[in-house]
Amino acid sequence: MNYKDYIASIPDFPQEGILFRDITPLMANGKAFQSACDELISFAKKVGAEVIVGPESRGFIFGCPVARELGIGFIPVRKPGKLPRETVSASYDLEYGSNELHMHKDSIKEGQKVLIIDDLLATGGTVNATIEMIKQLGGNVVGCGFMIELEALKGREHLKDCDVFSIITYK
Amino acid sequence: MNYKDYIASIPDFPQEGILFRDITPLMANGKAFQSACDELISFAKKVGAEVIVGPESRGFIFGCPVARELGIGFIPVRKPGKLPRETVSASYDLEYGSNELHMHKDSIKEGQKVLIIDDLLATGGTVNATIEMIKQLGGNVVGCGFMIELEALKGREHLKDCDVFSIITYK
Repeated sequence: MNYKDYIASIPDFPQEGILFRDITPLMANGKAFQSACDELISFAKKVGAEVIVGPESRGFIFGCPVARELGIGFIPVRKPGKLPRETVSASYDLEYGSNELHMHKDSIKEGQKVLIIDDLLATGGTVNATIEMIKQLGGNVVGCGFMIELEALKGREHLKDCDVFSIITYK
Repeated sequence: MNYKDYIASIPDFPQEGILFRDITPLMANGKAFQSACDELISFAKKVGAEVIVGPESRGFIFGCPVARELGIGFIPVRKPGKLPRETVSASYDLEYGSNELHMHKDSIKEGQKVLIIDDLLATGGTVNATIEMIKQLGGNVVGCGFMIELEALKGREHLKDCDVFSIITYK
């Protein structure tokens, strides 16, 4: 499937100089969305995932169908103030300021094989903060799966300890 | 399956006086999450859904697995500033202030049978704003499916024109 036919490229969104890759046309096409999810399901089987972790909110879009198909749990990574029980957190720097992410403290079992799924690998800030929390909780990150990888931002270079899979890449 | 065994009830979250129903233990249990999604898949088949619409971000958790299984599209309902192309919007009142939701203008086809999926039916503010947008776009809301319904808040009374299904209810 030529997935790029279903990605809209929007200049200067959400701010000037950013070329935003909009996945909503792909999600709106049942066959394209199903096919993309199925590629991530194959990857999850290959790495032996025992649980899926996905950052809000676009990580839920691809991660939850994978978890449901395999009959394994889905653990959300959320922004501050969203998870009601005790959490661990990690921060990462943005161009201006920083972002903080949280996971429930009881969400990962010691030694559990974790697959992180998100829509986009850019600089890797979100996925690295997620890996840091999973490690704090004793989990074993066996893979990271993405719908889109922006190669020029070199996020993959920070993910040398696990298997990385992207459905499509842009230079 | 006794789904309530997997729902944590958290007093005074996110503010005093609210008893928050936390679905993350259910999502973390592969069998319970799969079973809940499968109930919504059966409902989607029953109402003849041609597309799934889900509000961010917990609507994505249950809505995306349903769309992927049936091979139909998933349309996200998002907060302001998140969707990059032309949108329609609807507002609803909160106790203090109001919330605004958006959908892409090209996301629903005229006459398309739409199933709305969300985690929670409370007062119905989110789902009614979503119905308003779908109607603006010419869609036909055939059903609303929820993981949890809080009966005391009477959200169902505002949903008389479509089939409403909740996996579990609290009084």
